[in-house]
Amino acid sequence: MTGIPPTHPRYKSLMLRERLVGGFRHGIVVPQGLIAHGRGEMFDYLLGEQTTKEAKAASKAAAAHLLGAQRPAISVNGNVAALCPEDVVRLSILARARIEVCLFHRTDERISKIMQVLKEHGAAEVLGFLPDAELPGLDHMRAMCSKEGIYSADVVVIPLEDGDRAEALASMGKKTIAIDLNPMSRTARTATVTIVDEVTRAIPELVLNVQDLKDSPEAAKSALSKYNRDENLKKVSNLMAKNLKSFLAPK
Amino acid sequence: MTGIPPTHPRYKSLMLRERLVGGFRHGIVVPQGLIAHGRGEMFDYLLGEQTTKEAKAASKAAAAHLLGAQRPAISVNGNVAALCPEDVVRLSILARARIEVCLFHRTDERISKIMQVLKEHGAAEVLGFLPDAELPGLDHMRAMCSKEGIYSADVVVIPLEDGDRAEALASMGKKTIAIDLNPMSRTARTATVTIVDEVTRAIPELVLNVQDLKDSPEAAKSALSKYNRDENLKKVSNLMAKNLKSFLAPK
Repeated sequence: MTGIPPTHPRYKSLMLRERLVGGFRHGIVVPQGLIAHGRGEMFDYLLGEQTTKEAKAASKAAAAHLLGAQRPAISVNGNVAALCPEDVVRLSILARARIEVCLFHRTDERISKIMQVLKEHGAAEVLGFLPDAELPGLDHMRAMCSKEGIYSADVVVIPLEDGDRAEALASMGKKTIAIDLNPMSRTARTATVTIVDEVTRAIPELVLNVQDLKDSPEAAKSALSKYNRDENLKKVSNLMAKNLKSFLAPK
Repeated sequence: MTGIPPTHPRYKSLMLRERLVGGFRHGIVVPQGLIAHGRGEMFDYLLGEQTTKEAKAASKAAAAHLLGAQRPAISVNGNVAALCPEDVVRLSILARARIEVCLFHRTDERISKIMQVLKEHGAAEVLGFLPDAELPGLDHMRAMCSKEGIYSADVVVIPLEDGDRAEALASMGKKTIAIDLNPMSRTARTATVTIVDEVTRAIPELVLNVQDLKDSPEAAKSALSKYNRDENLKKVSNLMAKNLKSFLAPK
């Protein structure tokens, strides 16, 4: 019971906020995660809180990479687990991807709570509790990962990922699929494919595209050849800039 | 001990985030305040995390209004108290302004904690604990204020203020000085003067301008006549839009 009426013009955004605050009370989201969410909210506001055609094109390319992967993995943090655990699990099943919990503010307690949430939403296996490998170039606490999961993956989905970690994964030669609302972030500018979209819209869209392209290798090939990350990011930034100006224009 | 190295490209921003999380742990900041801070962070990012010449011009006009006030007041919420209590107290002394704690998510416990923080930073008197008046047009919990403070003030400084409350103060005929990073917010578009700047930069700048203009009525008059809120907001939005585009341009 949030008291927010479904007719409120910003209902969806407010409900996501409530979901995140719920995750925070449950101990899976950290205070810094709430701040980061607020930052994302504003970028989403500049997008018009909708999935753009640029995000759709990026999502198709991302689906093609996932379908071509040998060892795909999905990195999950507290915010992602609080916002859309069921979508993460659906994507992992469809794309045969390992799920690994990977936290910037890591504690065993948070990891086990997040694992439990994912299992309650249908995940058969979740990695991350007992890390046995390290990503190069990061300090120990932020480098830890699983050999079986992210460490040996060839394609990694990184929703809401930190810039340092995104760069470390790229430097290992992995393909990365970022979901990030800030088109200027290091993560957005480092990933193989960057979907600039809100994560609860982006993951279901990615699920649809994996389903669509599964039996259409030609369409998958075409999605890859049409996608250019920097051009895509430029278009998204221009759209945000245009909205920022028009909000202030006389109505 | 945050573990964030001072060489990190976003050190200042991350330290403010930590200060806010500290206020949150101390019980003066609410989760919604963390999210609101994140939204502000994104706008500050688009400003280049610096005080623009538009913010400086607005700050001069704000100082002139404060110096011309009969009964100035400063409204303080949890985020402001966590981020820059010492600056609030300095401004209140220089501008002979009452300090009143005014919370969107009001509890007596939070109010008394915030009062304590302000007193530890030198405030002689802080209003807000026993409200005896209401702002018109707001629901009871959010309308409460002090007759001696905000209710009877002619000029009110409202850092990080809610749109409803900013409108209520304006409808009472008060002059308001908003400090708000979102140039599109209702607060920004309602206030007499809007300083689009990060609060820990904006309040020290306002303190300097009050000192500067104190004995220069001509300069104060000139600052007022040069300032036009809507033009100023438009310039700031254009700057943000330009930065949003140029971040992605080849360097």
